[in-house]
Amino acid sequence: MPEYRRDPLSGSWVILARERAERPSEFVSQPVHRRLEPCPFCAGNERLTPDPLAIYPPRTAGEDEWQVRVVANKYPALLAAEGTDDREHDGGGKLCEVRPGFGWHEVVVESPQHAVSFADLTSAQAHWAFVAYRDRLRAMAESPPLAYGLLFKNCRGGAGATLEHSHSQVVGMVVIPTSIRVELDAAAEFYGRQGKCIFCHLSERELADGSRMVLSTERFVAFCPFASRFAYEVWVLPRQHAARFDMVKLDELEEISRLFQQILRALEKIFPQVPYNFWIHTVPFDRSTHDYYHWHIEIVPRITTQAGFEWGAGCFMNPAAPEDAADTIRSAMNSGPSTVNH
Amino acid sequence: MPEYRRDPLSGSWVILARERAERPSEFVSQPVHRRLEPCPFCAGNERLTPDPLAIYPPRTAGEDEWQVRVVANKYPALLAAEGTDDREHDGGGKLCEVRPGFGWHEVVVESPQHAVSFADLTSAQAHWAFVAYRDRLRAMAESPPLAYGLLFKNCRGGAGATLEHSHSQVVGMVVIPTSIRVELDAAAEFYGRQGKCIFCHLSERELADGSRMVLSTERFVAFCPFASRFAYEVWVLPRQHAARFDMVKLDELEEISRLFQQILRALEKIFPQVPYNFWIHTVPFDRSTHDYYHWHIEIVPRITTQAGFEWGAGCFMNPAAPEDAADTIRSAMNSGPSTVNH
Repeated sequence: MPEYRRDPLSGSWVILARERAERPSEFVSQPVHRRLEPCPFCAGNERLTPDPLAIYPPRTAGEDEWQVRVVANKYPALLAAEGTDDREHDGGGKLCEVRPGFGWHEVVVESPQHAVSFADLTSAQAHWAFVAYRDRLRAMAESPPLAYGLLFKNCRGGAGATLEHSHSQVVGMVVIPTSIRVELDAAAEFYGRQGKCIFCHLSERELADGSRMVLSTERFVAFCPFASRFAYEVWVLPRQHAARFDMVKLDELEEISRLFQQILRALEKIFPQVPYNFWIHTVPFDRSTHDYYHWHIEIVPRITTQAGFEWGAGCFMNPAAPEDAADTIRSAMNSGPSTVNH
Repeated sequence: MPEYRRDPLSGSWVILARERAERPSEFVSQPVHRRLEPCPFCAGNERLTPDPLAIYPPRTAGEDEWQVRVVANKYPALLAAEGTDDREHDGGGKLCEVRPGFGWHEVVVESPQHAVSFADLTSAQAHWAFVAYRDRLRAMAESPPLAYGLLFKNCRGGAGATLEHSHSQVVGMVVIPTSIRVELDAAAEFYGRQGKCIFCHLSERELADGSRMVLSTERFVAFCPFASRFAYEVWVLPRQHAARFDMVKLDELEEISRLFQQILRALEKIFPQVPYNFWIHTVPFDRSTHDYYHWHIEIVPRITTQAGFEWGAGCFMNPAAPEDAADTIRSAMNSGPSTVNH
């Protein structure tokens, strides 16, 4: 049985998931890129994964005509516990707190073909992937005792992918993860002082300044953050204040999926076959912080190594100034279609 | 010119170091392990590095008889600024704070031979390496405007080493890094509530419980922490309360260097040629937190990948329970000398 343990010093939760050690891995160690045959995510091999939790476009035709497919992770980090509600759990006073490892762990398979990068998906697949992200987070938000859901993508072995076929993961947890807690605290503090959402404030500054801007559309803004931890890190936010990603409308998802493919194609033009991660930060499911939190997506190419300094200090060395990175990405977007590098 | 930028959301400092992008790298990308020829750290090639800042054993004989050698990093993340004192710097009110990138960045070369792992050093070299760590942190502590010094090691490419030859790095910064700030806050809070050092308290608990113990010697204790973020993570602490690593005595350094080699040899027996990091956490140079902070060293084998979940959530999935890890390490230590795996 997995469990959550809270570190008495950092206050951060760790998920101990012994069972995960047994999953097969395409990338057993960094230099080895073994391909799992047959690929469990390709059309025709659906029997290799659990029954779908959702299929896109919504099941009008048969199951064999899916573009995007959501399944439970066969090697979950957490154990599903529908209906379990441990909200009465009281370990707050304990120095070394433990909670049972309840949670959801799902996989969004983003194409029936063996696409690797989100940039390689058809625009319909990219759109349905974002619809799936929203729907799964919405389903988790309505399922106590889950407190938070993290949608994240690992693309390519260098970014931690264990299967090559384009997919994302959603983990529903009974605790609020540290990154969200830290952002919530900063946002609450700023809101208390300035009466304004800090994310709205930062986006407006970036739009006005322009030097770190990557792209702006009718409803979204993308920029390299002022204190980028990772080289070529890009954040995407809605221009209008919105705390909940799971309330995003279909036409917004259409716009954001297009914008995502544009940004990722530019990054892959600059750094061919770049490994990358992205993740969605949205408001915790209790929604108590609606006024001052603002959902956003962080895209992180993995072109620099995080080593002893970063892990030991909890701060980052970044060899690319975000102003230079934004400039390079803008140029790559404006210089025509990307060449395919294989 | 490098610079520090503070992230308005996390409060963490990032070091923007454009110059670092130009350094040669043995590990250009993960799967490629190119060896830099000739190795700039091997005896006979001293001309390839700057003049030494220190040599061990202390220069009784000629420069060519060194065991451990400290040099300035040729590709520093920060710019030395001796005598500069920007303690009057006042950017605290600004949302997006910037500070000039003053700091020290040094390299401790740990053997004249081409040893790779700290476990491969002679016991004299291991001892002198620890003496060098102490001395360099002591020199930084006496050099305003430095506020903190982080000693860290990247061993092997998978742990972020760009040169194979066994070495560590020390970075002196004008800011307190996030990991230290977080530990200081937790330690202050515990001290205020319990009148006791939280690290002393946790060590006593681990000694009493035993299940996560790796090793205890006369003056040190080593255990896998209760909420280990990384599989097979090991912490080493002095049993007696001590805030400052830079005040450690020679005979203690002798004991800890022996203990380190034992632990690392056990880890390399379990996971041949395992990449690993370690780093020293000590009190900031202003020493204001002497009563409740406790220096320690964190050893982190890099056998699991940190991917989208870890970076996006700021919390970790660990497939190895610390109790199981400690048990395996104890067995490896007790089963005779390690076999060499090359």
